[in-house]
Amino acid sequence: MSSTRIETDTFGPIEVASDKYWGAQAQRSLGNFKIGWEKQPLPIVRALGVIKQAAAQTNRDLGHLDAKLADAIIAAAQEVIDGKLDAHFPLSVWQTGSGTQTNMNANEVISNRAIEMLGGEKGSKKPVHPNDHVNMSQSSNDTYPTAMHVAAAVEVVHALLPALTRLRDALAVKSKAWEHIIKIGRTHTQDATPLTLGQEFSGYTQQVTNGIKRIEQTLPALMELAQGGTAVGTGLNAPVGFAEKVAERIAAITGLPFTTAPNKFEALAAHDAMVFTHGAINTVAVSLFKIANDIRLLGSGPRSGLGELALPENEPGSSIMPGKVNPTQCEALTQVCVQVFGNNAALSFAGSQGHFELNVYNPVMAYNFLQSVRLLADAAISFTDNCVVGIEAREDNIKAALERSLMLVTALAPKIGYDNAAKIAKTAHKNGTTLREEAVGGGYVTNEEFDAVVRPDKMISPG
Amino acid sequence: MSSTRIETDTFGPIEVASDKYWGAQAQRSLGNFKIGWEKQPLPIVRALGVIKQAAAQTNRDLGHLDAKLADAIIAAAQEVIDGKLDAHFPLSVWQTGSGTQTNMNANEVISNRAIEMLGGEKGSKKPVHPNDHVNMSQSSNDTYPTAMHVAAAVEVVHALLPALTRLRDALAVKSKAWEHIIKIGRTHTQDATPLTLGQEFSGYTQQVTNGIKRIEQTLPALMELAQGGTAVGTGLNAPVGFAEKVAERIAAITGLPFTTAPNKFEALAAHDAMVFTHGAINTVAVSLFKIANDIRLLGSGPRSGLGELALPENEPGSSIMPGKVNPTQCEALTQVCVQVFGNNAALSFAGSQGHFELNVYNPVMAYNFLQSVRLLADAAISFTDNCVVGIEAREDNIKAALERSLMLVTALAPKIGYDNAAKIAKTAHKNGTTLREEAVGGGYVTNEEFDAVVRPDKMISPG
Amino acid sequence: MSSTRIETDTFGPIEVASDKYWGAQAQRSLGNFKIGWEKQPLPIVRALGVIKQAAAQTNRDLGHLDAKLADAIIAAAQEVIDGKLDAHFPLSVWQTGSGTQTNMNANEVISNRAIEMLGGEKGSKKPVHPNDHVNMSQSSNDTYPTAMHVAAAVEVVHALLPALTRLRDALAVKSKAWEHIIKIGRTHTQDATPLTLGQEFSGYTQQVTNGIKRIEQTLPALMELAQGGTAVGTGLNAPVGFAEKVAERIAAITGLPFTTAPNKFEALAAHDAMVFTHGAINTVAVSLFKIANDIRLLGSGPRSGLGELALPENEPGSSIMPGKVNPTQCEALTQVCVQVFGNNAALSFAGSQGHFELNVYNPVMAYNFLQSVRLLADAAISFTDNCVVGIEAREDNIKAALERSLMLVTALAPKIGYDNAAKIAKTAHKNGTTLREEAVGGGYVTNEEFDAVVRPDKMISPG
Amino acid sequence: MSSTRIETDTFGPIEVASDKYWGAQAQRSLGNFKIGWEKQPLPIVRALGVIKQAAAQTNRDLGHLDAKLADAIIAAAQEVIDGKLDAHFPLSVWQTGSGTQTNMNANEVISNRAIEMLGGEKGSKKPVHPNDHVNMSQSSNDTYPTAMHVAAAVEVVHALLPALTRLRDALAVKSKAWEHIIKIGRTHTQDATPLTLGQEFSGYTQQVTNGIKRIEQTLPALMELAQGGTAVGTGLNAPVGFAEKVAERIAAITGLPFTTAPNKFEALAAHDAMVFTHGAINTVAVSLFKIANDIRLLGSGPRSGLGELALPENEPGSSIMPGKVNPTQCEALTQVCVQVFGNNAALSFAGSQGHFELNVYNPVMAYNFLQSVRLLADAAISFTDNCVVGIEAREDNIKAALERSLMLVTALAPKIGYDNAAKIAKTAHKNGTTLREEAVGGGYVTNEEFDAVVRPDKMISPG
Repeated sequence: MSSTRIETDTFGPIEVASDKYWGAQAQRSLGNFKIGWEKQPLPIVRALGVIKQAAAQTNRDLGHLDAKLADAIIAAAQEVIDGKLDAHFPLSVWQTGSGTQTNMNANEVISNRAIEMLGGEKGSKKPVHPNDHVNMSQSSNDTYPTAMHVAAAVEVVHALLPALTRLRDALAVKSKAWEHIIKIGRTHTQDATPLTLGQEFSGYTQQVTNGIKRIEQTLPALMELAQGGTAVGTGLNAPVGFAEKVAERIAAITGLPFTTAPNKFEALAAHDAMVFTHGAINTVAVSLFKIANDIRLLGSGPRSGLGELALPENEPGSSIMPGKVNPTQCEALTQVCVQVFGNNAALSFAGSQGHFELNVYNPVMAYNFLQSVRLLADAAISFTDNCVVGIEAREDNIKAALERSLMLVTALAPKIGYDNAAKIAKTAHKNGTTLREEAVGGGYVTNEEFDAVVRPDKMISPG
Repeated sequence: MSSTRIETDTFGPIEVASDKYWGAQAQRSLGNFKIGWEKQPLPIVRALGVIKQAAAQTNRDLGHLDAKLADAIIAAAQEVIDGKLDAHFPLSVWQTGSGTQTNMNANEVISNRAIEMLGGEKGSKKPVHPNDHVNMSQSSNDTYPTAMHVAAAVEVVHALLPALTRLRDALAVKSKAWEHIIKIGRTHTQDATPLTLGQEFSGYTQQVTNGIKRIEQTLPALMELAQGGTAVGTGLNAPVGFAEKVAERIAAITGLPFTTAPNKFEALAAHDAMVFTHGAINTVAVSLFKIANDIRLLGSGPRSGLGELALPENEPGSSIMPGKVNPTQCEALTQVCVQVFGNNAALSFAGSQGHFELNVYNPVMAYNFLQSVRLLADAAISFTDNCVVGIEAREDNIKAALERSLMLVTALAPKIGYDNAAKIAKTAHKNGTTLREEAVGGGYVTNEEFDAVVRPDKMISPG
Repeated sequence: MSSTRIETDTFGPIEVASDKYWGAQAQRSLGNFKIGWEKQPLPIVRALGVIKQAAAQTNRDLGHLDAKLADAIIAAAQEVIDGKLDAHFPLSVWQTGSGTQTNMNANEVISNRAIEMLGGEKGSKKPVHPNDHVNMSQSSNDTYPTAMHVAAAVEVVHALLPALTRLRDALAVKSKAWEHIIKIGRTHTQDATPLTLGQEFSGYTQQVTNGIKRIEQTLPALMELAQGGTAVGTGLNAPVGFAEKVAERIAAITGLPFTTAPNKFEALAAHDAMVFTHGAINTVAVSLFKIANDIRLLGSGPRSGLGELALPENEPGSSIMPGKVNPTQCEALTQVCVQVFGNNAALSFAGSQGHFELNVYNPVMAYNFLQSVRLLADAAISFTDNCVVGIEAREDNIKAALERSLMLVTALAPKIGYDNAAKIAKTAHKNGTTLREEAVGGGYVTNEEFDAVVRPDKMISPG
Repeated sequence: MSSTRIETDTFGPIEVASDKYWGAQAQRSLGNFKIGWEKQPLPIVRALGVIKQAAAQTNRDLGHLDAKLADAIIAAAQEVIDGKLDAHFPLSVWQTGSGTQTNMNANEVISNRAIEMLGGEKGSKKPVHPNDHVNMSQSSNDTYPTAMHVAAAVEVVHALLPALTRLRDALAVKSKAWEHIIKIGRTHTQDATPLTLGQEFSGYTQQVTNGIKRIEQTLPALMELAQGGTAVGTGLNAPVGFAEKVAERIAAITGLPFTTAPNKFEALAAHDAMVFTHGAINTVAVSLFKIANDIRLLGSGPRSGLGELALPENEPGSSIMPGKVNPTQCEALTQVCVQVFGNNAALSFAGSQGHFELNVYNPVMAYNFLQSVRLLADAAISFTDNCVVGIEAREDNIKAALERSLMLVTALAPKIGYDNAAKIAKTAHKNGTTLREEAVGGGYVTNEEFDAVVRPDKMISPG
């Protein structure tokens, strides 16, 4: 039932399940790193497929690799890219810090699959050797960092940015739809001068717009690839021109503008580009936390909260309180943001801990980065579709709150001075009266002047 | 093939796969929260089984719940505790912040399984209703926090503390074995006065001993349970005495000394106990990072590093450099520590964000806490078994490094004064000579005096 | 005008201002570390005074130090303890990571002051040498860590714990005073079942009570001192018994139960006790953030917020909006909490970065720890005195919000079932009606039954 | 001796020291916020001077402010800009979260100084009123955020970027000088294939180059100013065109390309630009930590460390070990980096906590941001001047370490295959022999082939 074959590495033979393509080093890693439930992220696996394919193409083109072997490697790598071999990448995140075992996992799977395609025997390393052919001109030390950048860029471009754009657009629609609803402003959580609900949402829209731009600004550095640096950055055992050509190939396969890093020593020993892009992602989480928090508070109630927004009701809110509905999408999103904040700390820490020619915190960095991207992308879509698009303004409540505000007195200040205006507001607050009562009654202005100046619709713009 | 049944909640009917026990609310949550790949942690699921069983026992004993229904609930909950129903808890971490949907998932699974045991029809809510019976005397607002404490305490006590003890013991064995190997000390990473390798490892041992104690100190607060507070902490809809009795039942089921929290308002609105215990866990990660980092550096080489330790060789180290062996267990452990540091930031953040009667960051807190515990426990065992127990001292290298040190001059300072001793060391450093040459040659001491004072074996203790 | 004298160290002569007691190494440090505006914290300076005095006493008692020199050192150290020589400790936080230069600063100031007392010439190092006499039996490597623990413990015990107690007591007074004011509860920021305002504040009180206890739990480890470990933990150049006796002396001088650390290697190379105590302090910041945030939101308004609390008005709130009053004490406190969260990250990071026999992040750890303690202590007092004690309940608003709540329906659920109760609440919400109208009108209960069950005063406790 | 005058605000009269220019609100703040020792950063004070001057110019030009009053305000503001009135800004960082009191402090100081210039009486508010004239067209809510951006940009441009450039250039000089020194590479801290010391330093140089670019990328967003949004972002009470014109004035005064923010609601309620720029600064700290850590380890020894670099000796290293020299500049710099990491956590946290129209964590954000900039700038210069420029290569040690390395075997792998090469290295390691002995002795290659292939000078580039 669980038949096995023998695979070997420089440490000797080891049994592997017959139906798996991985080899000795992946198998050994399974035994040596029984840590946690987190597997190497699939975007990393797919990116390794891209790299192995690009490397085989390049080695073939440079005359270093027999075309027949190259073609088999290319075909096997395509299956990795297509996700057909995901089940053959079983390794933990928590392994050697260079990701060597996952690079070898890819080498082993692709060599065995290529051997199979060529009619050979899995585990024989013939005619396709995992190190000598699949890993040709590469080291884990340049390959895994390249996979990090490829996976990160692909996920950011194809998942995160579209999700943020969708959210931004939905917020913009609301901002436009509500541009005539005047409401009370709040600063320090306290009543302040008015603005429109549309203006309030325009601030949110701007935040997301800025966030998209910030992430985009960081992408060129993320597009720089370590590949070609091999073991320590010198490019030893890679042919001249390999670095440039393999980057071109990776760009062609992925459709993204990857380039070769200008300095391979930096590219192996540091992952600053990952840290910086995640700094932009972290800033987006900062924005989304604020937006979601506002929306939950503006939607608080239904009877005894601020009650300015009605959020979509998606599910029962309470197992004990019948009829309760909660701002659950806000809660999911803000939890995701908190996770991103924690991940940002982990990434900064890990990024600082390189030693000499290598940073050996690759897997933990890849894991945290890719988790942040996936979570923010998914949560942005969920929040957009299940919350933002369905929010409605509770105009009655908004109107009532605006009208009772004392901070409309601010409009009087340029006319009667800050100190007099303060007296009016404080007296009205103390007496539970209206501004008009105190302003006119106190002799500061006439009723007509009051009407001319204290107009919320005139208080929502300069001049 | 994928037959379904209709389940209902207060939002209406919804289709659920026939072979699943979950109900309408879990199903709805699957649709509403398509976020990430992280599922609710299994220790939370098992803890919910414990709570539902304990609640049914208590409700029955207090005369609130029909014995027949109670017994069915108890039996179904036992299957949750035993892990037989894990496949029926499909929900994401990233859902409503109270964990309501996972509480309802447990209510639904247990009610349907109990209905089945009693010969009823799944989805009928008869004779066992998920809210009225399984959730009787409970709210998600006290249940999920209780599950957090139960899961956290169980994992800490049964996984983390034994793993740390194992590591501590392995370090102590090394400390004892090496108590006579005198080596150069290093401060500021620079040569310093000697100590024994055993003393160096005694410091590591002490760190882990302290860490265990720190975690233990925090456990009593983690043993306090919110259950009985129901919706907002008042205990509405729970019978008098429920809180105390259900805690006793939970203690009996788990074998851990759980108690009812003295103030349920605090227990629902804050998760400070989780934050504090994780602070202790974070401190352990600080310790383990330092230990693993030292061991990797002391084991650096094999030819051109510090070379004082030989670490076990567990796998090939490089895909490009043949014969290379790396400190991979140190790398896995330090990566785990980095994750714990990030998780600590996330937990502190989330813990601070409660509003009024509830903190709605439950799932993200549970997820991070339990990940830290699992990772540290697993990594401590892996590091112990695959690294620490197999470390060997490279005594030749240690001896050579000790003998060439200039910091042995410190032993002369009490005799000839700090300033003269400094002159000897600096001259020897400048000239590339030995301390003896400069100390005796410079007329500071005789050869005999030098021999009597500059003795590493006398420099490893006071006096 | 600015006359100087010559001081010397092993690097040679250097000019020092005549009116300063510091010597060559402090002077050199001023030139080498022109970084930032943060000076070594005064509690560290004072703690060094304590240590130097205790060491002189111990060296004298053990017969290692001439009594006359010892007495002069003791007297000079007393001036450091008393804060008379604060102006002579000019060094930056950002210096050598062992704090060596600040230890030498203390040695130099005390030796020069002692020389002066004995009629000698400053800078002559006679008859009191900064290294040979003031630093006798010590190294910076055990002294600065000892100063960290002494300063930390003194500040925690004398500043932070009393401040937290004061806050706790003020919250308890409010909790008691408001135990009969029934208000709407809020979970997920949404209307929920009622509780008393006193119960709500009892949760805050419990949080602070727990926080005090947590900090206290960590103090025994903070009371363990590294002194006696000297350069690398072996105690080289310190007499047998020095460690124990100097700890006794430090305990006697400070009145706190300091002891000698059981393992000096741990005590020099790790600062886990600082990390853990700060973890407890961090948990307190988590609590205080939540409390202050609640109070600001409960006090929001005055007209269009939740409006349940009236916070003391201490100053004008706005430079543009006349009459505005803001929850400024909440803002100061939550900002302090944010600083503590950042400091916690810095401390964990620094604590993990020891190498071999020494952690060289002493000053940054001391700075962050002591800043957190000072800020939390001061802010807790300011928040207590300028906010908590003056808060008043706005009972009219509280009553109105309670009465319009739909979540009182929860009391009906045990009688008519969760699903029926949900229908009532949802219909009332949709129609803008009252619970009574829908419950009685829908035929679920009679008016009498409604009156008997839906009673907020019966909903604030179990049973 | 300490004569006072009476100042008033809307809360009434209060005594202020006669020799101080501040007024009632600053005085009140001193009493209400006795928290910590951290004062409002001077760059904020100076930036407020810039803003008040620019606002007076703009109000005058727009015909809103009498020219005589405007000119007095402009003159007084110039004294703030020039630092002549620093002593009149005594307020704590830990105050109201909008920084209102510091804005009022500026309004009060400038109005009193302008009054004085115009021959009036301090405290009279005539003819220059702090709110009506100095604060004209402004609110604290747009002014303090503007001050944050102005101060941040000024400090980044004038302090941090030049410091980083200086460091980068010094590293580049070393990289060039050492381009022919071949040394052993180290990955996983273990011996690896060779590179040049120049290549190693080229990686550091690239990191700093990238860091400078990253910060520069973020500056345009930091140049966007909130001014003109007034209380809630609408621009109420500011004339049309004020926002644009005041930004132009600020740009003219500072010589930096400030512009008006495109959306004032975002600019008041969020400080994402601060968070993002600090994310870039954080990435620089990540880089510098790695660089400084490498340099300290490469400089370890002098006898029993890696010993490849000789760092400048700037001061005595130890109070107990005579002649010891430590990598103190590395220690100061890495401590600063740790502080920046902590500050990054604080900034992210604070940035996420805005409510509605305002984020009230302004002072803590300004404080952390400006501390990071100052510390990194100063530390980069100190590290450059006191360490980098004086580092020397210890070529004898470098040569010896290279020659004994086993990883030169990598050059043989393309010729004899990875598996055979691994056998050679492992056998040599086991036997303590050389690669040549095992490669030739084992019959894998001839002596001539070995000489032709295993050439470090051929191993430092591709091909």
